[in-house]
Amino acid sequence: MRIEVISIGDELLIGQTINTNAAWIGQELLEAGMEVGRVTTVGDGLGQIKQALAEAAGRADYILVTGGLGPTNDDITRTAACEYFGVGLIRDEATLDHIRRLFKRRNLPMASVNESQALVPETARLMQNDRGTAPGYIFERDGRHYYFMPGVPYEMKAMMTAVVLPELQKAKGGQVILTHHIATIGIAESSLYEQIGGIPEIEALVRLAFLPSPSGVRIRLNAMGEHEEEVRARMARAVERVCCNIRPYIFAERNIPLEQALAEELISRQEHLGVAESCTGGLIANKFTNLAGSSRFFERGLVTYSNEAKIQFLGVPEDLIALHGAVSAPVAEAMAEGVVRVSGTDHGLSVTGIAGPDGGTPEKPVGLVYVGYAGKGGAAVEEHRVISGDRLVNKERFAYIAMNLLRKQLFNLQT
Amino acid sequence: MRIEVISIGDELLIGQTINTNAAWIGQELLEAGMEVGRVTTVGDGLGQIKQALAEAAGRADYILVTGGLGPTNDDITRTAACEYFGVGLIRDEATLDHIRRLFKRRNLPMASVNESQALVPETARLMQNDRGTAPGYIFERDGRHYYFMPGVPYEMKAMMTAVVLPELQKAKGGQVILTHHIATIGIAESSLYEQIGGIPEIEALVRLAFLPSPSGVRIRLNAMGEHEEEVRARMARAVERVCCNIRPYIFAERNIPLEQALAEELISRQEHLGVAESCTGGLIANKFTNLAGSSRFFERGLVTYSNEAKIQFLGVPEDLIALHGAVSAPVAEAMAEGVVRVSGTDHGLSVTGIAGPDGGTPEKPVGLVYVGYAGKGGAAVEEHRVISGDRLVNKERFAYIAMNLLRKQLFNLQT
Repeated sequence: MRIEVISIGDELLIGQTINTNAAWIGQELLEAGMEVGRVTTVGDGLGQIKQALAEAAGRADYILVTGGLGPTNDDITRTAACEYFGVGLIRDEATLDHIRRLFKRRNLPMASVNESQALVPETARLMQNDRGTAPGYIFERDGRHYYFMPGVPYEMKAMMTAVVLPELQKAKGGQVILTHHIATIGIAESSLYEQIGGIPEIEALVRLAFLPSPSGVRIRLNAMGEHEEEVRARMARAVERVCCNIRPYIFAERNIPLEQALAEELISRQEHLGVAESCTGGLIANKFTNLAGSSRFFERGLVTYSNEAKIQFLGVPEDLIALHGAVSAPVAEAMAEGVVRVSGTDHGLSVTGIAGPDGGTPEKPVGLVYVGYAGKGGAAVEEHRVISGDRLVNKERFAYIAMNLLRKQLFNLQT
Repeated sequence: MRIEVISIGDELLIGQTINTNAAWIGQELLEAGMEVGRVTTVGDGLGQIKQALAEAAGRADYILVTGGLGPTNDDITRTAACEYFGVGLIRDEATLDHIRRLFKRRNLPMASVNESQALVPETARLMQNDRGTAPGYIFERDGRHYYFMPGVPYEMKAMMTAVVLPELQKAKGGQVILTHHIATIGIAESSLYEQIGGIPEIEALVRLAFLPSPSGVRIRLNAMGEHEEEVRARMARAVERVCCNIRPYIFAERNIPLEQALAEELISRQEHLGVAESCTGGLIANKFTNLAGSSRFFERGLVTYSNEAKIQFLGVPEDLIALHGAVSAPVAEAMAEGVVRVSGTDHGLSVTGIAGPDGGTPEKPVGLVYVGYAGKGGAAVEEHRVISGDRLVNKERFAYIAMNLLRKQLFNLQT
């Protein structure tokens, strides 16, 4: 079973849009135990599209095409498909009804250009588009399967999930496929590898992937086989083997970010958090408030960028800053205590550091950060040094170092 | 001149990494008046890479390859290139020196695996990698040019800028190419199109692109021709025609985000800003502090998520919240006044709204936002309604609506 993706659209070639669709499809197929052999990106040109289809058909038996199904002139994937398969267009009443209902629901007048989207290639099976006007098409020829989907990501994803992935899985055969995620923080990929130990033995049970990012290293386990019970047992053994030596670093056995794990814990405890940020400049507050319902645990955030703000809002003693500098362990501590005191929350978190590119000195270089905690879990302060020249990467790392301190205090961990 | 891109890496096919390199290359070439004809993404396999090279050579005369030049076993682009061109490896002393210096500068021991990166294909011209250990290679055969670059974005970008783009431009011939950006905010793409008017006449002078995003619509103008003076005059006429009817919406005639334009203005005036955020939860503070040197204008940010925080830190009257609700014009006004009063800055900005997905009511639906300004520019409050079901998109829109209010107050604009 060989699968390829064809992404269609001038906007992809000129870089106006980044091809996230291909990445998403690759992830989904991998989770289902399949792989993309190649991604071909071409523009909105009849010749290019037909050539890409013919070439992919020479290599693959499942070809997933996205993009170019919109109602305007520059979208010509439907025409290219008709020419490639040598078929004409017919009007599909069900599709027309669907488009009409969609416009009615949105209280918008329907343009005649949208009516033309009910004209579909005559031999194609249709995939309904619950989220837009363009239906998807499925063609089969010479044992090859072609799936044409819209390029709008959330329309494509719905169609993939509802139709394409199930059909691919069926074609792949009755294999059971299980995926398990182990999310870690506070340990480098190479150390994780060492501490887990016996990786070859684990890889005899499951397929293992280490996915590093500024928010920690995720471990993905994939297991597949004929019999569900056997696959489940094998996965359970592998998960236990991976986890047993690295428990203090694991914050979730799901594919979620650390802020979500912390939010769920705080909400379940009915506890609240206040954050005082200097160098991260609101990034931590922003990450927590990106979660729906964040007001249930996030009380307030203070971006005390200036020394005056640290003194005035957090009660950091002026002479502490004068003595140790704003980027120091005592100031981080005072900031965390200050945010708990003024906001009356259960937990307070603070960050002060040097994100760069400027502001570093030999004693306090760019990448140096102090994170502080105060509250129910006691009090703590940590010093870290991040080696990255990039301001945004540093902010991201600093934010997760601070969140990891909160995690360690919440769960009383020593790492 | 036909250009194609080949992106190499298993991580791209499984969606662990999104192919931003191809998008960046597409943008850069477009700016220089050239276009990418196709992007082919293949995995780290000898056969796949050689096949992709051979196929691209059948269509294009300039082939830009990224990825797979790292020092570890899974990076095999160098081997694939040697096999494709039928050449062996030789040791390059200059490259070896460069790698040694790099490790010395970083105070790291050099692994023998890195030494092997000084082995280069014997007929290739080399491109020095100022930012990493892997040199780039240039091959020429049968009138076709192949550029092999690392996949690490900032290494690839440096090589593109220093070597590949200049060589492509030279090959393209003596055409003069000019690009001009006009960055707007506070007006929809369709309205912009209408207000500018006479688009066909402008398109007779330059190539025009409208690039919408949550941070406004960017207009890109491209002009090319034989004689610099003529191209400059044509561009100037087009810019004047585009700008004359939409001036109040233009915040920069460069490709920069609004926060940067505001930061530059505040720094030049030696004025400071304080921000009080409710629903945007630190996003505005984060955007401002993503700019290097932000302490020169950004004094502090308050993420007053709870009513208590609004009352305590900003002095918003409790009965005002009780009477109008936290999401209301009077509260937005009081928040802006509060942040200026407590922080003593020249300008204060506030946001309160409903980002969703929950928390909406028929009177105050998800997407409703109030933004407030207080300070040197007077005082103002605005109500906006954003139609998007997505929390993160809403936060992004809200943030730019607030920043646009600051812009209007700074420049005394009525839009």
